[in-house]
Amino acid sequence: MTNDPPAPLGELVRHEDDVLQRIAAIVGRRTIPKGEVHVGDDAAVLAPFVGEALISTDVAVLGVHLDAHLFPLEDLGFKAVASAVSDLAAMGGRPRGAVVAVGSPPGTDLEELHRGIADAAAMTGCPIVGGDLTRSHDVSVAVTVFGECPGRGAVLRSGALAGDELLVTGPLGRSAAGLRRRRAGAPLEDELVVAHRRPWPRLNEGIAARGAGAHAMMDLSDGLGIDLHRLADASGVGFELEQVPVAAGATPEEAISGGEDYELLIATDDAARLRLIFHDRGLRAPITIGHVVASKTERTYNAEEFVRRGWQHQL
Amino acid sequence: MTNDPPAPLGELVRHEDDVLQRIAAIVGRRTIPKGEVHVGDDAAVLAPFVGEALISTDVAVLGVHLDAHLFPLEDLGFKAVASAVSDLAAMGGRPRGAVVAVGSPPGTDLEELHRGIADAAAMTGCPIVGGDLTRSHDVSVAVTVFGECPGRGAVLRSGALAGDELLVTGPLGRSAAGLRRRRAGAPLEDELVVAHRRPWPRLNEGIAARGAGAHAMMDLSDGLGIDLHRLADASGVGFELEQVPVAAGATPEEAISGGEDYELLIATDDAARLRLIFHDRGLRAPITIGHVVASKTERTYNAEEFVRRGWQHQL
Repeated sequence: MTNDPPAPLGELVRHEDDVLQRIAAIVGRRTIPKGEVHVGDDAAVLAPFVGEALISTDVAVLGVHLDAHLFPLEDLGFKAVASAVSDLAAMGGRPRGAVVAVGSPPGTDLEELHRGIADAAAMTGCPIVGGDLTRSHDVSVAVTVFGECPGRGAVLRSGALAGDELLVTGPLGRSAAGLRRRRAGAPLEDELVVAHRRPWPRLNEGIAARGAGAHAMMDLSDGLGIDLHRLADASGVGFELEQVPVAAGATPEEAISGGEDYELLIATDDAARLRLIFHDRGLRAPITIGHVVASKTERTYNAEEFVRRGWQHQL
Repeated sequence: MTNDPPAPLGELVRHEDDVLQRIAAIVGRRTIPKGEVHVGDDAAVLAPFVGEALISTDVAVLGVHLDAHLFPLEDLGFKAVASAVSDLAAMGGRPRGAVVAVGSPPGTDLEELHRGIADAAAMTGCPIVGGDLTRSHDVSVAVTVFGECPGRGAVLRSGALAGDELLVTGPLGRSAAGLRRRRAGAPLEDELVVAHRRPWPRLNEGIAARGAGAHAMMDLSDGLGIDLHRLADASGVGFELEQVPVAAGATPEEAISGGEDYELLIATDDAARLRLIFHDRGLRAPITIGHVVASKTERTYNAEEFVRRGWQHQL
């Protein structure tokens, strides 16, 4: 708060507290479990977690993660929460809550931004239990989610074994195709544009895959072209990619390197059990895309080298 | 990632992963508890928490929370982590870990920033278990900390009762005095300047106060002039402030509205027990500053109205 002028007495000094109260009314949960404290104290207090605790943080910046000319501000809030919750899905976790730290310049519609945050929180069953606001040049949303893993432990990226089947939870490229369509003038309600604006974390699929004993799992946030390499790097293995399922309306390149699909990538030695559990729970059948090989350097797509490619920030 | 150019094949595409690896080497803990996963997967995995879970998030922006002309970048990282950990101290919690989401423009010395983050993590016993990096115009650090409350539950702001004694864990105004001295040319090593650059979360004091059955507690991040009102608001009470302990080298005004001292404000009906437990644990004696009264509107300092004042962001 170094460069702020000292706040004057009287009305203005209540400004931050007032804004916080309006936002708490938007993101606050109507019913807070007995004994818990969400927004309003120094820290949120939650009832004890069951099993391992999972934590992940993601920051989204207007102009970097979302084009303000093409999309409403609430989409930034929605995407920030959804991409963070997807990291819990990628471990097979169950969300317990999230906190949001928002930076914004004067005049930003913080209520619109928080409506997007609240929508994603409600749709993923992940209550917003706290937050922080600050002045900044960028509009940014840093979301931290935490979850729990009752029973069997979290599914890591590093557990893939030679011979495992590789599967994804759905066809790829919808988000990149939606962005392309929006740039070409498609309305916000276009089905693929909605896939870009409102990504859906695969929580049920992640929990089912953990229950089915999957060896390794991650979410495809940056595209199969880079994330498949990351899973292989973490597991110390290679892969033979045999097919990439392309979503209707997307191009093969969008399916490989578009990113932001948030489908799960799963490695398992018992794909039949995985399919059965998905079927029993009414989930869409996972799609086999290839298998894991022992040689770390063997990384092929239909027998040709599969080059690492996808979205990366230039830092 | 909307406005990034698609990353080219080959070297550049590994840039983000490379930076992440260098940073992980700075903030990563040398010994990770068996069964835990910190940096490197979709989410961090921690062993089960004991008792209630505490969560808090804080964002610090260069130029808002720290003057880049007066202080090194690593101070931004240190202060961001310390102020977040202080929120755990304010509940009487024990830290279990933190995640950091960093936004920065090209050319930012991310390693220096993360050295400050790592220093604060080491000094508070709060390991950095994950993070995220993004491109932005501001240099910003969003820190989310989580802790646990074994035994007796967290101490809230809302529990103060009429008749309670109000105490603080130390004299106030050191941080504001240090900033003033730095602006006047004092070296970075000046004792009060260090108090501004390297705030110390009162974790041991918070745990001791929780054990002593304190009714209410919070940290003085924005100054007694606003935080005492916040505690009274949350508890639905008033107060009679009798003295404000001013740190050596600070002014009375800095002690009241300077902020960033991170001493704890405690309300208890058994100050003798609090003092005894602090003494037994080798902690500095807490200082009585006044007491709680039933009337919400009675808020006085030596019988005159105590007006709400302190740092607030203009949002």
